[in-house]
Amino acid sequence: MRATVLHKAGDIRCEEVADPTLILPTDAIVRLSATCICGSDLWPYRGIAPVDSPTHMGHEYCGIVEEVGSEVRSLKPGQFVVGSFATSDNTCPNCRNGYQSSCQHRTFMTGAQAPFVRVPLADGTLVALDEVPDRSLVPSLLATSDVLGTGWFAADAANVKPGSTVAVVGDGAVGLLAVLSAKQMGAERIIAMSRHEPRARLAREFGATDIVTERGQEGVERILEMTGGIGVDSVLECVGTQESMRQAIGAARRGGYVSYVGVPHDVQLDGQQLFFAHVHLHGGPAPVRRYLPDLMRRVTEGTIDPGRVFDLTLPLAEVAEGYRAMDERRAIKTLLEV
Amino acid sequence: MRATVLHKAGDIRCEEVADPTLILPTDAIVRLSATCICGSDLWPYRGIAPVDSPTHMGHEYCGIVEEVGSEVRSLKPGQFVVGSFATSDNTCPNCRNGYQSSCQHRTFMTGAQAPFVRVPLADGTLVALDEVPDRSLVPSLLATSDVLGTGWFAADAANVKPGSTVAVVGDGAVGLLAVLSAKQMGAERIIAMSRHEPRARLAREFGATDIVTERGQEGVERILEMTGGIGVDSVLECVGTQESMRQAIGAARRGGYVSYVGVPHDVQLDGQQLFFAHVHLHGGPAPVRRYLPDLMRRVTEGTIDPGRVFDLTLPLAEVAEGYRAMDERRAIKTLLEV
Repeated sequence: MRATVLHKAGDIRCEEVADPTLILPTDAIVRLSATCICGSDLWPYRGIAPVDSPTHMGHEYCGIVEEVGSEVRSLKPGQFVVGSFATSDNTCPNCRNGYQSSCQHRTFMTGAQAPFVRVPLADGTLVALDEVPDRSLVPSLLATSDVLGTGWFAADAANVKPGSTVAVVGDGAVGLLAVLSAKQMGAERIIAMSRHEPRARLAREFGATDIVTERGQEGVERILEMTGGIGVDSVLECVGTQESMRQAIGAARRGGYVSYVGVPHDVQLDGQQLFFAHVHLHGGPAPVRRYLPDLMRRVTEGTIDPGRVFDLTLPLAEVAEGYRAMDERRAIKTLLEV
Repeated sequence: MRATVLHKAGDIRCEEVADPTLILPTDAIVRLSATCICGSDLWPYRGIAPVDSPTHMGHEYCGIVEEVGSEVRSLKPGQFVVGSFATSDNTCPNCRNGYQSSCQHRTFMTGAQAPFVRVPLADGTLVALDEVPDRSLVPSLLATSDVLGTGWFAADAANVKPGSTVAVVGDGAVGLLAVLSAKQMGAERIIAMSRHEPRARLAREFGATDIVTERGQEGVERILEMTGGIGVDSVLECVGTQESMRQAIGAARRGGYVSYVGVPHDVQLDGQQLFFAHVHLHGGPAPVRRYLPDLMRRVTEGTIDPGRVFDLTLPLAEVAEGYRAMDERRAIKTLLEV
């Protein structure tokens, strides 16, 4: 098959590779209905997290089960499934505690920017729909695999409740879907921090009540000004840099909640600053598996339309242009047709 | 009056100072029934947080209201009161959110190792009993002022619930009372990390089910071994150093809770380590005022006896020996009779 391989920073190609095959009896092979490019794929693409050797890219996926290993019990060929970027047995203590992305047998998915992908721990990782969904639902179902699940975790980990005042740091696809998630959880006021008009517009459509264009300390001051000097109940940090983290902690009220869902790059938190900020802090790789059944139901029932974050659709063969468009911020998120 | 003054590291004296007087109309003067030395007093005593000029020490207090300012509404002379180390108006948004130790008008108490102390924001800071308590209850009521309130916050901030598995890092008075607090909150298993037998014994009496003598990475490995490789639900970090914080984060299960209640000294948290540890983190100066009515009731009803952490009692005139005994770990906590 022809699939996506990153050779080195900036050098991404759609090229001939071996078809994936069952390796373990707990594996499944999924024929993708669509795939996409993640903001986190840009770290190696930009050389910030360099690759040592040619790497098969992609960890967001949905599609039809093609083949299952001999020990797979709950799935059969022909079913439509979505899985998380982190595989999980869904039975270990960490999974039972709802942290499937820290499953004791976790692996991180790769190779999903392709027509077929091998999914380890298929029983615990994949969630099937009763019926193959209408083609029009595929983008939104694909979004549940990571970007919505991650935005949802951001809102959940920041304790968003009916009536909450929320700020979202980051206007990438995760940040935008964190806005949607906070809205679904009943937040009353949702402040999206964005200075890019097409993204701010989508944030408003997803439920943002306010847009703040200032960043860093200015952004913090603007939020404090909007909240009587107190800060917001919940800040959803969807970037993963030192500046965005500092901004998030500064914008939360005393006793408020800060979540962080992007892998932090060179972030150091000063113990004493955090101590006197008096915030709750929670984050990590989103346990998307915990949320998948609920999120897939919301999509199939038409309650939410997270697939709207895909503002560029390309055939898989043009994956390089998809990366470029996201790198240059011409696109929020690229869907790849396979 | 004769009160406690720190002149420089190691040089603590009981000497003649001016009696405190009402400065603001919201102040009260309290005649102390007893006072004590806090583990945090050792930071300036040891020169780790040096003082610039002679400093009146002491921030834990209970006693009889001697005099109130013209705007004090809820208190009158003769009442027995306890207050927190942090003053609060108990009406600002941070107070209403339960974070009185981040009150918008907060000051930190000082000068309480003395026969009399001035308490700012008396209405919001002090909690009165209906009657003057029996003398025998004074040590435990004094403990609610900081060391129990802080241990209680450690347990609350780490989400201790009936059935929880808990580890407590630190066997100072706060750590020991964090054990007592976790027990009161219904924890099923409480692992105290201590290598000092008199402290470990008191920890057991307060409710510890297990004692771990290993520290640092060895301590983490011991806790993991005891919990099937998973870690505990809640870790209560009651020290405030880089090592204790790393130990606390390492001992928690994925999705577990880590609280920290001692001012962190030179602690830096690595964002990426914290991200993959997948813990909830919460701490800061304990909002003791939130808990005081409940804790004082538990003491007067005889449910708890936190005053047992005082294993040395001295007259105020011998305060220097009290500091020395705690500095050399000969005493857990020194009560000063005034």
